[in-house]
Amino acid sequence: MDVLENFTYDELDVGDTATFTKTLTEDQIILFAAVSGDMNPVHLDPKFAETTVFKERIAHGMWSGALISAAIATVLPGPGSIYLEQSMAFLRPVKINDILTARITVTEKLPKGRVVLQCEIHNQNDEQVVSGQAKVIAPKEKMQVDKPELPEITIG
Amino acid sequence: MDVLENFTYDELDVGDTATFTKTLTEDQIILFAAVSGDMNPVHLDPKFAETTVFKERIAHGMWSGALISAAIATVLPGPGSIYLEQSMAFLRPVKINDILTARITVTEKLPKGRVVLQCEIHNQNDEQVVSGQAKVIAPKEKMQVDKPELPEITIG
Repeated sequence: MDVLENFTYDELDVGDTATFTKTLTEDQIILFAAVSGDMNPVHLDPKFAETTVFKERIAHGMWSGALISAAIATVLPGPGSIYLEQSMAFLRPVKINDILTARITVTEKLPKGRVVLQCEIHNQNDEQVVSGQAKVIAPKEKMQVDKPELPEITIG
Repeated sequence: MDVLENFTYDELDVGDTATFTKTLTEDQIILFAAVSGDMNPVHLDPKFAETTVFKERIAHGMWSGALISAAIATVLPGPGSIYLEQSMAFLRPVKINDILTARITVTEKLPKGRVVLQCEIHNQNDEQVVSGQAKVIAPKEKMQVDKPELPEITIG
């Protein structure tokens, strides 16, 4: 079983950085529509999407947001972090088979365990798709936790 | 088949408001973990969650974010909106069986079709769990689109 290890507030330094990569698949779009309730056809209907400025189906913007939150919760600072704030600008559409890499960088250490994180997502062509900032309470205690295993999910 | 109807920039007035409601279930947590890659055990492992400040499993913060984006994309302004920015403060944890209502309110009309939206989420006890702001390009053209149907999703 994989293990998730965190970085405590005391361990974090300004400039620390980590990445988290994920590919947008059609299944990811369907799952995100189901879990969000966002059934906008620009994400789900290829014919409708052709009529839009995007010309093809695109990811829900918040799917990219989910990538950032996954990077924060599982990598930097990791388990034990408490999510306080997130801002995001959606700079470019994300299309099926795009490979996104979220990069989280510590930019500021504040009192009371608070940490400010710069959050950038680039695609496989090194084009920036999201820029944002997060504020979290970093963990006080070092932790190694088993990564839970999910039940199988079947679509269709 | 349900129909999604949008509000164009010209139709929108400051103060216009709409809501979107969704219940957090265990399945929703599993789907969000799968789609985000966020396998933090505070969301997935009841025994681990007991050891945290939250005492029980909580929703991924960005699950609430997804609710806001669904409200914007399908209700106000609805299909044809282009998502530019989102900020969120996570004020309280969301627990299984909580019923969340996202309220979107037009607070500003800017040039070039831009609209600022206040985004608030409250739970069934009228406690605020998220506060935020979005900026979108509102649709130019009135649109009625069929709500796509999702394939069946089976867990476990």
